[in-house]
Amino acid sequence: MTADTALHLNVFVPTTGHHEASWLHEKAQPERTTDISYYREIAQIAERGLFDSLFLADQLAIGRSVRHVAQGKLEPLTLLSALSGATERIGLIATASTTYNEPYNLARQFASLDHISGGRAGWNIVTSWSAEAAGNFGASERAQHGDRYQRATEFVDVVSKLWDSWEDGARVYDRHNGIYADTDRIHQIDHRGDHFTVRGPLDQARSPQGHPLLVQAGSSESGRNFAARYAEAIFTAQQDLADAQAFHTDVKGRARAFGRDTASLKILPGLSPILGSTEAEARANEEALNALSLPAVGLKHLSQRFDGFDFSNLPLDEPISIDSFPAPETVQGAQSRAGIILEIVRRERPTLRQLLHRLAGGRGHKVLAGTPKAIADHIQTWVEQGAADGFNIMPAVSPSGLTEFVDEVVPILQQRGLFRTRYAGRTLRDHFGLPRPASRYARSA
Amino acid sequence: MTADTALHLNVFVPTTGHHEASWLHEKAQPERTTDISYYREIAQIAERGLFDSLFLADQLAIGRSVRHVAQGKLEPLTLLSALSGATERIGLIATASTTYNEPYNLARQFASLDHISGGRAGWNIVTSWSAEAAGNFGASERAQHGDRYQRATEFVDVVSKLWDSWEDGARVYDRHNGIYADTDRIHQIDHRGDHFTVRGPLDQARSPQGHPLLVQAGSSESGRNFAARYAEAIFTAQQDLADAQAFHTDVKGRARAFGRDTASLKILPGLSPILGSTEAEARANEEALNALSLPAVGLKHLSQRFDGFDFSNLPLDEPISIDSFPAPETVQGAQSRAGIILEIVRRERPTLRQLLHRLAGGRGHKVLAGTPKAIADHIQTWVEQGAADGFNIMPAVSPSGLTEFVDEVVPILQQRGLFRTRYAGRTLRDHFGLPRPASRYARSA
Repeated sequence: MTADTALHLNVFVPTTGHHEASWLHEKAQPERTTDISYYREIAQIAERGLFDSLFLADQLAIGRSVRHVAQGKLEPLTLLSALSGATERIGLIATASTTYNEPYNLARQFASLDHISGGRAGWNIVTSWSAEAAGNFGASERAQHGDRYQRATEFVDVVSKLWDSWEDGARVYDRHNGIYADTDRIHQIDHRGDHFTVRGPLDQARSPQGHPLLVQAGSSESGRNFAARYAEAIFTAQQDLADAQAFHTDVKGRARAFGRDTASLKILPGLSPILGSTEAEARANEEALNALSLPAVGLKHLSQRFDGFDFSNLPLDEPISIDSFPAPETVQGAQSRAGIILEIVRRERPTLRQLLHRLAGGRGHKVLAGTPKAIADHIQTWVEQGAADGFNIMPAVSPSGLTEFVDEVVPILQQRGLFRTRYAGRTLRDHFGLPRPASRYARSA
Repeated sequence: MTADTALHLNVFVPTTGHHEASWLHEKAQPERTTDISYYREIAQIAERGLFDSLFLADQLAIGRSVRHVAQGKLEPLTLLSALSGATERIGLIATASTTYNEPYNLARQFASLDHISGGRAGWNIVTSWSAEAAGNFGASERAQHGDRYQRATEFVDVVSKLWDSWEDGARVYDRHNGIYADTDRIHQIDHRGDHFTVRGPLDQARSPQGHPLLVQAGSSESGRNFAARYAEAIFTAQQDLADAQAFHTDVKGRARAFGRDTASLKILPGLSPILGSTEAEARANEEALNALSLPAVGLKHLSQRFDGFDFSNLPLDEPISIDSFPAPETVQGAQSRAGIILEIVRRERPTLRQLLHRLAGGRGHKVLAGTPKAIADHIQTWVEQGAADGFNIMPAVSPSGLTEFVDEVVPILQQRGLFRTRYAGRTLRDHFGLPRPASRYARSA
């Protein structure tokens, strides 16, 4: 199966925008963040732009800065189920944690979303690391990095067995003989592992995609191995072409080592575009957003990235030293994101305030201020130079930033023959050019 | 707050119909049971009929008779989220188990459904008892009856604290001072109990209803106490006016003992109507459905009601003795339903086949074959005689049975002034005439 486009676009649906001060922007709509009409509007803009998918993150807790940062959006699986009826083609990717769920519950909610949406469901698999989430699930000690991935591996194994437990066509509707389903094609999975014991089968017939698309975003050593083994799309934070190329090569190589076709794995770095009709206007738009941000909020977020390490006594307007940070390998949270921050410090030697501004926009994801042509050039270069199979677009302010991207950048990408001009397929797997897996329990024909 | 109607109607959404052989009926649509358009149609018929709510059950496992009984419908929370966009007023009640979920996960999914639907969410609280469900959640021994209700009690306590953790109006959107939310109105719940340790707050602002409606269906001793303490609507299986009156009086009395207004608790017995233009035609319709059922399937279901007890060596066409059953108080499953079955045997002395037919239609719920007028008479009598505040309508065949009820019975109820002729309110609490609870954390004004 070949995708209808060489370039894949996903929109990372924000609350009021991906910039941490976005809610203060004149185009932001902070009053609408629990309003279904707001998300319908975003989904329909993205579908008008022929995006492969839209994606909802999830933290299982409020952040520490709710006083100053817009929060409290809706729960991903219920929200995407609602959006399925407001859209026809766009893929719907929900984040869900393997740390604080039961595989049977998640397997059936994703299968159900896949049925409801006609084959458009995707699961962004996360292993929760924050102390805030742990406190909401009775976990006095949050799981260590390695343990989280061991549980995640077994979790995905159980879920995919459950998705396969009804073979395609198990429902035979044989009215003449009174046989609703062929029980030879419905299987107990009888899983017994270190973390889970699950008999199965699932309580639902096999879904349109067989398996909802598996998405992953960990970029640490264990995260990369997990992604290389299971993920069909990867979200990653990459600041720099060479680093992105190295990541792309590394993960595709690992996938090959697991016996996978490298085309079965799409890598989508994050990109938060800030548009202007000139370079100068784009930069001014970026600076205006940064000027809305509060250093105290940025310091809290930076601290969260380093397990609560305190940066608040450092001078804001002096270059920050690499020695001011704890070693990234000691970080129990997202190690890859901590590494990216250290790399920015090493290369650019920013003041603390400049670093906070860099992170305010994309939290370690690439922020790019420029004209529509410059944004399209960046996308084209990264795709053509083997740094990306597509992008995870993170509007700085929502929904205006998405509208601008769809109206001004997408047409350039289409004119250059890089991006689809219509959806050729109906399912999320169709958009990404990924095959529909057969049930592991089906006898070969 | 007063309801806009004295009578409340809920539709219990079936797979192909509540009769176990319904999928074989000529009007059934077994091919559509994982098709969202099928459920949209049902929801819109019920909304056209001005029903208070629709309701989805959930077993967390397939039943034992998937070969012969239509199964495998969609997961309730995702399905209702999707249906919220296809309807405007009708309440949306999902079953979810306190045995196999985490309170933080359920609290936010129900709050999210309440936001998405504009205040139409309800939660049917169940404690899972089946060995089949236990096998899907790594539980080698299923929880004993009492333990399940202890966990359920603490679970509901945690969930309702989380729903209150953001006071109304906590989001202040103060652009001038850069304050998104008033953190004095967002509360950690710091729950520490026997089953759960949950810090909170929820990651979502308070939902339109404050608390989604709490619904319950247990009718055993612990089930009644639980319902009397927490439930705002109760689904119950009642065969007989006197029994239904006794149940109504008993549960309302228990609610009073918990300090509750008895009007804050609506009792809805199940009713599976089988319509005909004459009594004879209705009876023929019922017999035609029963004739489609298989004794082997009925015997399996009966066995499930009594913890796997084997009835298959008893003669089908001889009266069954009460001594053939195990004592109901030894049943670990739904004790109330086992008791209803024994009561039918005691009163009516049916043959085993007749008993299986009785159960094939409503699994212990009342099946009533009759003209539209006879069905309306039954409803009126039970409401006027203090046996019911409304009914949980269980179409024998779907969606045709619901369409017939809406087109033929609802108008009679309206003509008699028993049932609303339009929705006066917008939320599920409005329909049931129930107040919106204040957050327990809000300082008194």
